[in-house]
Parts: sequence; structure tokens; C-alpha cells
Amino acid sequence: MNSSMVRYVLGCVLKIEGVLLLLPFLVGVIYQEKEAVVYLMVALFCWLVGFIMTLRRPKRDVFYLKEGCVATSLSWIFMSLMGCLPFYFTREIQSFTDALFETISGFTTTGASILSEVESLSHCTTFWRCFTHWIGGMGVLVFLLAVIPLSGGSNINLMRAESPGPSVGKLVPKIKYTAQILYLIYIGLTVLEIIFLLVGKVPFFEALNISFGTAGTGGFGIKNDSIAGYSVFVQWIVTIFMILFGINFNAYYLVLFRKFKKAFSIEEVKYYLLIILIAVGIISYNLIQASLGVFDAVTKAAFQVASIITTTGFSTTDFNTWAESSKTILVLLMFIGACAGSTGGGIKVSRFVILVKTVKKELNSYIHPKSIKKIKVDGNPVEHEVVRSVNVYFITFMIIFAASVFLISLEGNDLITNFTAVAATINNIGPGLELVGPMENFGFLPALSKYVLMFDMLAGRLELFPLLILFHPAIWKDTMKQKMELRKRSKV
Amino acid sequence: MNSSMVRYVLGCVLKIEGVLLLLPFLVGVIYQEKEAVVYLMVALFCWLVGFIMTLRRPKRDVFYLKEGCVATSLSWIFMSLMGCLPFYFTREIQSFTDALFETISGFTTTGASILSEVESLSHCTTFWRCFTHWIGGMGVLVFLLAVIPLSGGSNINLMRAESPGPSVGKLVPKIKYTAQILYLIYIGLTVLEIIFLLVGKVPFFEALNISFGTAGTGGFGIKNDSIAGYSVFVQWIVTIFMILFGINFNAYYLVLFRKFKKAFSIEEVKYYLLIILIAVGIISYNLIQASLGVFDAVTKAAFQVASIITTTGFSTTDFNTWAESSKTILVLLMFIGACAGSTGGGIKVSRFVILVKTVKKELNSYIHPKSIKKIKVDGNPVEHEVVRSVNVYFITFMIIFAASVFLISLEGNDLITNFTAVAATINNIGPGLELVGPMENFGFLPALSKYVLMFDMLAGRLELFPLLILFHPAIWKDTMKQKMELRKRSKV
Repeated sequence: MNSSMVRYVLGCVLKIEGVLLLLPFLVGVIYQEKEAVVYLMVALFCWLVGFIMTLRRPKRDVFYLKEGCVATSLSWIFMSLMGCLPFYFTREIQSFTDALFETISGFTTTGASILSEVESLSHCTTFWRCFTHWIGGMGVLVFLLAVIPLSGGSNINLMRAESPGPSVGKLVPKIKYTAQILYLIYIGLTVLEIIFLLVGKVPFFEALNISFGTAGTGGFGIKNDSIAGYSVFVQWIVTIFMILFGINFNAYYLVLFRKFKKAFSIEEVKYYLLIILIAVGIISYNLIQASLGVFDAVTKAAFQVASIITTTGFSTTDFNTWAESSKTILVLLMFIGACAGSTGGGIKVSRFVILVKTVKKELNSYIHPKSIKKIKVDGNPVEHEVVRSVNVYFITFMIIFAASVFLISLEGNDLITNFTAVAATINNIGPGLELVGPMENFGFLPALSKYVLMFDMLAGRLELFPLLILFHPAIWKDTMKQKMELRKRSKV
Repeated sequence: MNSSMVRYVLGCVLKIEGVLLLLPFLVGVIYQEKEAVVYLMVALFCWLVGFIMTLRRPKRDVFYLKEGCVATSLSWIFMSLMGCLPFYFTREIQSFTDALFETISGFTTTGASILSEVESLSHCTTFWRCFTHWIGGMGVLVFLLAVIPLSGGSNINLMRAESPGPSVGKLVPKIKYTAQILYLIYIGLTVLEIIFLLVGKVPFFEALNISFGTAGTGGFGIKNDSIAGYSVFVQWIVTIFMILFGINFNAYYLVLFRKFKKAFSIEEVKYYLLIILIAVGIISYNLIQASLGVFDAVTKAAFQVASIITTTGFSTTDFNTWAESSKTILVLLMFIGACAGSTGGGIKVSRFVILVKTVKKELNSYIHPKSIKKIKVDGNPVEHEVVRSVNVYFITFMIIFAASVFLISLEGNDLITNFTAVAATINNIGPGLELVGPMENFGFLPALSKYVLMFDMLAGRLELFPLLILFHPAIWKDTMKQKMELRKRSKV
């Protein structure tokens, strides 16, 4: 394995994080908070570590899928380890495990919090907490690719490991420009939301943080009641932007380049919107039955459906008290998730489209055993390799899911809490049901459960395999062997 | 489609059922119950319908996988519709829906009951109720193949549609002998259990019915407290026989023909026993923590683990009150199920073995992208086609599962009840948790939920696709077209 290249990428990521940590420092300076010093110190430390790691440029800078995965997952782990330090050193989060949980939850855009009280946090910590969502949403390695000239053609492997969805295409032939376009769309939409929120009379600092949470489909609230306290106008703005950030960014790219017909014929986006419509319909009906007004019911239903399917996790109401069928719908939406190529999590609509078509094809094969029709998406045949990898993804997901539920059940709690805690973390949503419901938090969980859920958050964000690969003995044997050889050579 | 052949098979099945219905009639005569008359009438009616359907032998008796599936699933539906009539006409079950639910639950060896009180049932009804398990366990079409000379080489398609597990092999070249051998092993083991139960001083009639329930991995109890009232000796006998009936019958065949080495090296059986061992270990530990004696704890844990993994569904205790981790283990075991080629349900151990190996292979492909190693089971490479169909099976299973939970959630109840009710029926187990726990029953559920669960029971027993195919429009279009053509020809 090209481990010096992995080291180099890690160093770059830490340098970027060091620079990004200056932003909360600035916020602290503006609001004249003493916590700002901590952010400055951590920023410098982070940058310094990154600097040392990138002192020596690796000789060979090609790297394969394997290195791409290892670099990506290690980047996310190191980024979280560094990113949690300010929480811990400002003493705003008392335990290291909790600080790490909160940071991983931030970067992976999960939004599951261990804090019961967020309004008393310093401004710089509030900012950093929400900003981690924004960084994690599009991905730090995509950012890296956009700004740093990494030569060698295999950088797509970095992007492939970090970007959500079954098939990562380049929008334009050059990876660098693809990454830049993605970030431009991302920034554009975020700014648009900030403007709309300002129109809704949300103070600038709050508008900024809410937009970070929406853009990254994260869900950390800056109020204890999440978005419930804001006006209906603001709630609708957030609803619409959550849905927008859950759409495949390819669609925006096509719109930007005036390929409207192609943009509006993306099958995944159609199904995504259809699912939202049906879910809002049923839940609204249930809420009206529970004697809510029609407009109020639709507002609440739309917000919560958008929040869950895009895996954001904001809430305007305690859906834990909703009708069973509404709750069941929300649980199902948790697994479906947003579109591939968006900032959302979950298994992704496009995967489900392929899964359902696979089942249909199987059924057809019982009737026409000799048919060799391929599955089609957007009118194009899908390669067997893609179908196979989607199938395997789903299976792996379910196995990790079951294993996680089992592990955290060892520490007690009821089945629904365990089940939805895992569902809410592996799908990067945030709140679940019962003890981890929208009005509760993850703070009470014992340590083992927290670490299992941290693993799930990372696994969900990095699409399983890049993280799982770290547990493959071959990776470490390989690296050890190389080191041994180097040592031998230097002795000779 | 060769629909006259399907009709002919259906007729044969009904004739067999007519004969089998004479057995509860006999029981009624022995115990001098007036309900016996009902059984005689239904038996005659059933035989008569079958007789009429088989009057005309079809000209072409070949049939393909499609016909095999349709014949099988329709057989099971008709068998259930006929089989429920005695329950309804003796008024021992008041509603037709409930009678049908109980019968489908019986034939599919699920054992989910709508009755809250079973001890006051007449002897003939008790017998028929338990006997449906025995018939459904090995499958009525396998029986058909064993006794009726159907010429044409494609009968394997009938067996394939009815037998559980990913790959149905013939034990011997001729299907007829394979079916006979399977039934001989089945009868042999059942008789053995009856003898052991008689040694345990269980009255003959009870021993008979308990053995039917164990052999088919069904689970209808003849006492309101299932097996809890019997001695520890009897509980262990039932435990051991449940485990035995969950083992791949191939193993017994190999033992019978003295191929011991091959018999004891079946990977699936090894994993099956290992899973049982681990589950019993953890649950026993939990029970001991809850201040039970060691022997008592192991007895209870072993019984329940065996009952759930083999998808039998007997109980000796209210596991709904157990520790969360114990309950979670039971829920996971529900999905794993027994070995393929046994009478048990669930997804099957062999499928999970292949699924886990698929994930492992995928992980390896990240490290050695060019490797083309095949997955191996029992030392033999598994065909891609088998791996693919296992993957698709799992996906289809999960989609049906999610859809079912959603549908029954529309009629209320808590998520755990809904979730475990579907899990307990689609895996052919019987009791779930909460409102459908081992000390409760399915009687309170509204009609829609009951029909959804009936579908799930049939889908689970027939391994999904043979039932799903009935909903494929091509099947009906095809049949309609044929009829139109026949009519045209007769006009000419």
C-alpha cells in the first residue's frame, strides 16, 4: 500500500481543518468570548500536525481504490479526533467520549446530540458544531480535490470513497473541476437559504447556523426545541431547502448548463419527490384525524417528512407522540434516505430504485426464464456490476444494522430505542424514537453503545466499505511488511 | 401456460386433503364427538371437488418453473380454503377470516393462533389443527410426488417451488424416490419423538399432537400455556427434537447411507448449531443474572432458542418479560431461521452463510480488485446464479417485510407489535413480542392486518416468488389468451 500517500492526504486534511478552525475563533473574537482562545490553540495545533505530515511529498502519488478508502476513512477519524478537542477543552462537553460523539455526529451530518441544553453554549462552539455539518455535507476530500493540485489520474478513488451513492460520475472530465462545480452549487444554495431566512427575520448568526445544518442535512439545532420556535414561514423555508439539498446535485449541474429536459427526467429525483408527496399525504391525514387544522397538519407533516427523508433530523414537533402509522412511515423513510449525489444519507433512493427493479426482474425470470433484459434507469441499461454492488451494499448494511442493534441491546434499553438509535445514526439522521426521540438526546447511553453508534455514523456517511476496509487484516499486514522492508533496506 | 396441468395438480392435492380429513373424523368417532360429522362432510366435499378437477387428464403433462410455482401457490391457497371449513362449520372458530388465518398458520407451520383458549376444543379439531403442521412441514406437493406417478421430467419444478432453501438438490436421480426418502425420514423422526414423549408419561393423544407441531416446526399448542406445564424431561425432549427437525434433511440421508464424514462436514449445520450454542449461552447468562438457577436458566433458554431459530414457536415462559438483549437475540434468530431442506422457516442459515461470504468477498475486492475467487460452501464453489438469487431473495424479503409492517401499522398498535407480528409470520414462527407475545394471540387484530399476515405466512413458507408470481399480470393474461383461443377454435 502507498502509505506515504495516505499520510500526505491526511496531513492535507488536517491543514485544511486547522484553517477552518479559525472561523469559530473569529466568531469568538466578535462575540468577545474567552472560548475563542481554545479554538485558536486547537487550530494551530491541528495545522502544525498537518504541516509536519506533509513535509515530505511522497515519491509515487498514484493510488488505488484501496488507498482511497483508507485515506478517506482515516481522514474522517482524524478530523473528528481533532475537531472534538475544542468541545472538550472549553469544558462545554465534559467527557471526551461525548465530545467525540458530538463531533462525529456533526461531520457525518447525523445531528444526534448528547447535549440536553444547547442554548447556553458559547457562540464559537455553536458555530463550530453547526459548521461541522457543512464541512461534512459535501465532504472534506472533495474540497481537497477542488483546491489542491494532486497529480495522478486515480484521484477519482478519493471522491468515490467519500461521495454518497452507488455510482459517482464525473460531471466534467477533470475531477478538479467536478469538485469545484459541486462546491459552487453547495455554496450557492447555502447562501440562498441564508438570504431567505434573513427575509423571514431570523437573526444573521442563527440563519447562518440553520443553513449549515440544512445544507449538510445535518440537523444540530441551535435552540433546545430545534426549529419549533420559528415562524411558519421559516419552517417552510427550511422544509423546502431540506428537500433541495436532498436532490442529486447532478440535477442542478444540468439546470445550470441549461439541459432542462435531462435534468427533469432523472428517475431518482422523480421517485424521491413522489415518496415525499405520499408520506406527507398520509401523515397529514393522520394529523387531521388527531384534530389538527389542515394547514397546520401539512406544515408539520411536510417539515418532518423532509427532515427525515433527507436525513437532516430537525424537528418542529415531538413525532414520538404521533400515530403508529405515521411513525412507521418515518422509520421507513429513515432507511430510504435522500438521492445519491446529494448531501443526504440513508440507503439512497437510487439504490432502492435498482433494488425494486432487481426484484421485478427476478419475478420476470420465473415467467420468461431465457430473457436477458438488463435493468434500466433513466432509460439507460445499468451494468451488472452496479446492480451487484447495490445488492451487496444493501446486504452489508443490514448485517451491520443487526449487529449494532444486538451490541447496544447488551446495555439495556427497549427494542425501539435501540432499533431507532441505530437507524438514526447509520442513516445519518439524528433523532429516533422513544428514549432517543426528537425531544430527547443520546447523552444517557452507556459508553459501548456510544462507540457502536459512532462507528455506525461513520459507516453510514462513508458508505460502509471504506470504513470496513480498516478492519481487514490485509491492510495492516501490507503496511507492516512495507515498513519491515524499508527497515531492512536502510540496514543494508 | 399449461393451465389444465395446474388444474390437474390442484385436483390431486384436494383429493389427498379429502383423504387426510378422514383422520380427524376418525379421532372424532373414537372420542364420540358430534363435530366428527362436520369433518366427514368436508372430507367428502373436498374429495369430490378434487375428483371432478382430475376427471380429465391433461394432454401435455410437462410443465415449467412458472407452472410449478402457480400450481404450488394455488394448491396452498385452495388447501387452506378447504382446510378451514371444519373450524368454521363446527363453530369452534366463529369468523371465517379467523378460521382461514388459523388454517394458513397451521399449513405454513407458523403456529400464530387467533384462539385464546385451546383446551376446550374438540379432540377432532385439536387433531386437525396440529395435523396441518405436519402436512405443511414437509409439503403436500412433495407428498404428491412421492405417491402419484406424474410423468414428465420437469416435476423438480414443483418440488423446487415448495421446498425451503436456496438450492434443491435431488438426493437420488429420481424425484419420486427423493420425495419418498424425505417422507420416510420425516415419519421416522416423528415416531421417534412420540415414543420419547410416551416415555415421559405424556398421554398418547397429546404426544401425537406435540410431535406434529415439533416435526413441522409449527408450534400450535394443545394447552393454553403451550409446553410450560409439562415436565422438564418433556421440555428437553421437545427442545432436542425441534433442533433435529431444523437440520437439513440431507444430513439424515447421508447418515442413513453411512456417509458420516460428509454428513458431519455440512457447513450450514455447523453454523446452525454454533448459533444455537451462542444464543443459549447469552440468554442463560441473562436469566441467571435475573436470579434463576443455572439448570433452570439453561432449560428455559435452550427451549426458547430452539423454538425460535427452528421457527416452531412453542414456549415454556413469557419471553416478553426477558432482558432486552435476550429479546433482541430472539428477534434476530427469527430472521436467521433453520437450515435449508429442513421443515423450518426463516431466511435460512445457508442463505446467511452465503450473504456473509458475499460481503467478505466484496471487501476483498477492494483490496485485490482483480481477484476472481468464487464463494465456497462445503468446500465447493457456489455458482454465481445461486449467489445472485440468494441476494435477490434477501432484498425481496426485506421489501415485503417493510411493506407489511407499513400496511398493518395503518390499523394502529405499537411498532414492536407490528414489527414482530410480521417477523413471526413471514418467518413462520408464531409468537412475537408485546401484544402478539407468547402469552397473547393474534385474535384482536383487525381484518386487513390478518390478511396481510396470511399473505406473509404463505410468502414465507413458499419462499416468496411462487406466491408473488400470482400477482404478475402476465400469468393471467397468458391464461386468458389461451381460453379465448380455445373458444375460437371450438366455434370454428
